[in-house]
Amino acid sequence: MTLAATTLPEALAEVAEDIDRRFAELLADPGDPRASLYAAMRHAAIGGGKRLRPLLVFATAHLFAVDRNCAGWVATALEAIHVYSLIHDDLPAMDDDDMRRGKPTVHKAFDEATAILAGDCLHALAFEILADPSTHADPFVRSELILDLARASGPSGMAGGQQMDLEAERQTFDLATVTRLQQMKTGALISAAVEAGAILGRVPPEGRTHLRGYAHDLGLAFQIADDLLDVEGDEAAAGKKLRKDQDAGKATFLSLLGVERAREQCRMLVAQAIEHLRDYGPEADLLRAIAAYVVERDR
Amino acid sequence: MTLAATTLPEALAEVAEDIDRRFAELLADPGDPRASLYAAMRHAAIGGGKRLRPLLVFATAHLFAVDRNCAGWVATALEAIHVYSLIHDDLPAMDDDDMRRGKPTVHKAFDEATAILAGDCLHALAFEILADPSTHADPFVRSELILDLARASGPSGMAGGQQMDLEAERQTFDLATVTRLQQMKTGALISAAVEAGAILGRVPPEGRTHLRGYAHDLGLAFQIADDLLDVEGDEAAAGKKLRKDQDAGKATFLSLLGVERAREQCRMLVAQAIEHLRDYGPEADLLRAIAAYVVERDR
Repeated sequence: MTLAATTLPEALAEVAEDIDRRFAELLADPGDPRASLYAAMRHAAIGGGKRLRPLLVFATAHLFAVDRNCAGWVATALEAIHVYSLIHDDLPAMDDDDMRRGKPTVHKAFDEATAILAGDCLHALAFEILADPSTHADPFVRSELILDLARASGPSGMAGGQQMDLEAERQTFDLATVTRLQQMKTGALISAAVEAGAILGRVPPEGRTHLRGYAHDLGLAFQIADDLLDVEGDEAAAGKKLRKDQDAGKATFLSLLGVERAREQCRMLVAQAIEHLRDYGPEADLLRAIAAYVVERDR
Repeated sequence: MTLAATTLPEALAEVAEDIDRRFAELLADPGDPRASLYAAMRHAAIGGGKRLRPLLVFATAHLFAVDRNCAGWVATALEAIHVYSLIHDDLPAMDDDDMRRGKPTVHKAFDEATAILAGDCLHALAFEILADPSTHADPFVRSELILDLARASGPSGMAGGQQMDLEAERQTFDLATVTRLQQMKTGALISAAVEAGAILGRVPPEGRTHLRGYAHDLGLAFQIADDLLDVEGDEAAAGKKLRKDQDAGKATFLSLLGVERAREQCRMLVAQAIEHLRDYGPEADLLRAIAAYVVERDR
């Protein structure tokens, strides 16, 4: 059993508590001149966010009866990469955001230099966790997890997608390019979380087709839902500034498809994601519930 | 044989050419909206720098007859981490430098957002290289290399040292704290390079004591020599702005020891580093030459 929870709200709460506890252990005050660096990392990493990526690691690992502690550290590594990317994306030179997860962003609560370094440190810590023999005893599994995460977060994944997103302010992308951008920027790390669960479950690559299909459709649905929330959502509930893409005149799924077609596309992708899980029994109910949650969430 | 060169100048040239070639392959224009991101990475990574860390990987691997191509990719990963740290350190919010390796810094030649992302991408690429089975066939070796590099570059190593360096502008550190700061900021990655050579040579941890002693003393000597060059050096030869620590009133080896004692300390550390290699024969001559070069270099 990777999780004790049987419903999605319970699972979300259980994962949030688990990840917070691991970050608190990892990022404890070192009691030296690096204190503010660690405080900045704790500020960004603890007590916030949906923990969608960790939940996906747990929920996929659950299919294969993976050890709970092992899944927990891998989930923490995935979230460390996500948190580092938020810290850097919020910087004045990037998206210039003041609020994140209902709190001041790291460069606002501390300063820009500390924010850059806190992001860099969480980035390195993710790989330190995955390479540590106490996370997983098999070096082949460790190495596969690291390759999965490095590819998903680097220039062919998340960071490359962020660069394309910056370009989207300078040129008008078509639907195919926006889709590729979002698959890289958000989709790659969501896919990496599901893939990590399968790696932990020792599923060989040829056995991961359905899970990859699930993650692919979920990632796109998640991004379209994010675009819808950006336009229709409440800033207080979201805990961050909204409607920035619109103001910047950036091409998004919404600007290209319109609200109705985007909503329809999102529902279709969720149905498709769930359909990919048809070979799994009740052990995949959490993955199904996550897909449904993606369209229903309010933040 | 890891290197064809028999003298240090030849080895420096050979390593520089090797690393440039690998970066050119890795960072080729993707022909899509990420073009400027890749151009920024090439700008920072290709055609500059002493390549001290890659040289240390090659020279240590040389002791154990490690495969040349394998050592080359590991050396490239180490240098990718070093280059990413230079890009981020040069940012306006950090050291705010306009010139590096005789060229405009990345945020000057491109922009700040691209510089942040180019650093993040080189950071991820380093781990992608090390986790790739084509770099080394044994997953245990890959995993050990990754743990070595992640620890050396994260909050307990390079990035933590950079944070302490920022603190050094706000408080006055004593010699013990400056020594720890420098061991983290510069020493950790130099030690990781030597350690990587030993890992590739399949030297068990208990057999690495002398090499670790060599790397430790070399790292400190390198930093003292850097401090001396910062005060006595020529900006054109260095390819970057000098005397910034002095202007900021920062405690350094030099401000704490004075020029004469610092120079003496540097010579002593180099002699000590070479003494750690006493059990090795002529196969360690390159490592000895590197130690001597550290005090003699003009940039």
